[in-house]
Amino acid sequence: MGANQRVAVVGATGLVGQEFIKIFQSDPELGDLELLKFASSTREDAQVMSLKDHGDELARCKYIINAASAEVAVEIREQLKPSQVLIDNSSAFRMDPEVPLVIPEVNAAVLQAEPHVIANPNCTTILLCMVLAGLKPWGLLRVIVSTYQAASGAGLQALEELDAQIKATALGQEIPKPQAFPFPLVSNVMSHNSKIREDTLVGLGFNDEEWKVIEETRKILDLRALQVSATCMRVPVRRAHTESVTIDLKKEITLEEWQEVLLRSPGIRLVNNVKQNHFPMPIEAENQDHVLVGRIRIDSMLPKTVHCILCGDQIRKGAATNALQILKLYRDFHDHHAATV
Amino acid sequence: MGANQRVAVVGATGLVGQEFIKIFQSDPELGDLELLKFASSTREDAQVMSLKDHGDELARCKYIINAASAEVAVEIREQLKPSQVLIDNSSAFRMDPEVPLVIPEVNAAVLQAEPHVIANPNCTTILLCMVLAGLKPWGLLRVIVSTYQAASGAGLQALEELDAQIKATALGQEIPKPQAFPFPLVSNVMSHNSKIREDTLVGLGFNDEEWKVIEETRKILDLRALQVSATCMRVPVRRAHTESVTIDLKKEITLEEWQEVLLRSPGIRLVNNVKQNHFPMPIEAENQDHVLVGRIRIDSMLPKTVHCILCGDQIRKGAATNALQILKLYRDFHDHHAATV
Repeated sequence: MGANQRVAVVGATGLVGQEFIKIFQSDPELGDLELLKFASSTREDAQVMSLKDHGDELARCKYIINAASAEVAVEIREQLKPSQVLIDNSSAFRMDPEVPLVIPEVNAAVLQAEPHVIANPNCTTILLCMVLAGLKPWGLLRVIVSTYQAASGAGLQALEELDAQIKATALGQEIPKPQAFPFPLVSNVMSHNSKIREDTLVGLGFNDEEWKVIEETRKILDLRALQVSATCMRVPVRRAHTESVTIDLKKEITLEEWQEVLLRSPGIRLVNNVKQNHFPMPIEAENQDHVLVGRIRIDSMLPKTVHCILCGDQIRKGAATNALQILKLYRDFHDHHAATV
Repeated sequence: MGANQRVAVVGATGLVGQEFIKIFQSDPELGDLELLKFASSTREDAQVMSLKDHGDELARCKYIINAASAEVAVEIREQLKPSQVLIDNSSAFRMDPEVPLVIPEVNAAVLQAEPHVIANPNCTTILLCMVLAGLKPWGLLRVIVSTYQAASGAGLQALEELDAQIKATALGQEIPKPQAFPFPLVSNVMSHNSKIREDTLVGLGFNDEEWKVIEETRKILDLRALQVSATCMRVPVRRAHTESVTIDLKKEITLEEWQEVLLRSPGIRLVNNVKQNHFPMPIEAENQDHVLVGRIRIDSMLPKTVHCILCGDQIRKGAATNALQILKLYRDFHDHHAATV
């Protein structure tokens, strides 16, 4: 196979990397592509190459998916050849004005310029923007979001820590001292474990996760004056993030209109069974590509304000699926461009 | 002891009733009062009388605390003698214009009229209003709350159901079919299990819990035009509710001013350790009387908007503690009144 057919996934041993490999390999449209797996650490095996020792192999890949850290992303970009494309899941370049921040269902058009670095947004932001995008015709003024984020959003170690705590609780044993999170998560709710912004005037007191949601949402929706606020919390859930969202619009929308928007939005599934109290839940969102949306309501006093909850697998649509969609879309644009030249 | 010294607790076998008994018996100020325990069902034992068979005993109590259902509250009120006082934890009379809805730290003054029926607010509402009350001098315009509510808020059976699910998960067994909640709660988040309002124009799509928060908050704070919206959710937490709150004010407040308000508010504990990411958590709020408040922030774009999270034991301050405070306060007013007549 030629270099144009090679895809590298860096961070192949992490949760997002593993998920990317899984969905890549099960996608029938990608049969002509060869997947090479890299670990950012020096650990390697028959399946996974160490990035440090196999930079030459990475250089031979057309597409590089970075599922490792922001530091690794910076290193990869420094070595990037003009023929290569980096799709980066880290936060390294998301707010770089030169780098598009892409959710294919929301702003695919920015890929037509064939950028060489493309940023995959924060997981919480992706799920949120999937719903906000459909309301753009009614004029987005203000968004207030509170999150219920899963342990696995903090990686494999955090997930295993929660599992160990569940086991200890069930057996009546003392909960082992937490390592991944500052406090036990079982039977608890805690503020998101990212750093609180202290050395800044803008966003003082918000944590890094919240600030990503605030800034990235404005960039993705191309609404630089959109009023966004976020409160990000961890809950004892293994996988899939939930969000409670309030949206102030410029114009009134009816529930029927909103329902129609959601029903015709690719990547969204309306779960809004009022009689059975059946709404979006992590246990139904996990291992799914769709964002589940429900509890859609018009505010009781403010007719231009709406509320909903949404739920999505932060490793799938919040990371790996979105990156794979970008890869496929980019290839389509590129092939089309090549064909018409 | 005379009838003036008798206190009845109805619903003595439920979570709130049991908690009331516990804190009543450990309160040194109440040593002169005799506590009689009633169950609303016909089950009775040496400790607990059946309400049905011992109405005569109930009639001899000066104070009746109802920790049973709204139906039981209605029955008790029908039989209430002019010399008796009903402190009702159910939702039966909360929105009755004749019945004061009381949080002692917020609106104790309404007890001076010595009403015969006093309503204890909804648990989520109590925790919320404890924080809102301190911001009244800055002018409350709009409140948006998303909740993270514990299983025990739905009673003992719901708590045992979560415990059984945790056990099954730890042992790798299938989760037993849920009875108390419509779906498994372990490793899940779900919309609050109360009924969604369908047959109404006002509050359409909100569930009963959310509607209680909306209506009761306005009544307690005596701000009938306050814009309140709520999204109430259950999380796999055994005890203590968490709330993420956004508040629009008429006037700007500084973080220092808000901190001062919280520090001098009785019943509130500021937990806002930014360096260690230590904020209000259910595992630290359970079995405590205080409402924990933290993550206090001024909005990054709207200088008159503030955000916080709060956490409190919904069985303690959200129910039993508040009822006991009302009892003690009522007795103080009554004794004072009797002394000055």
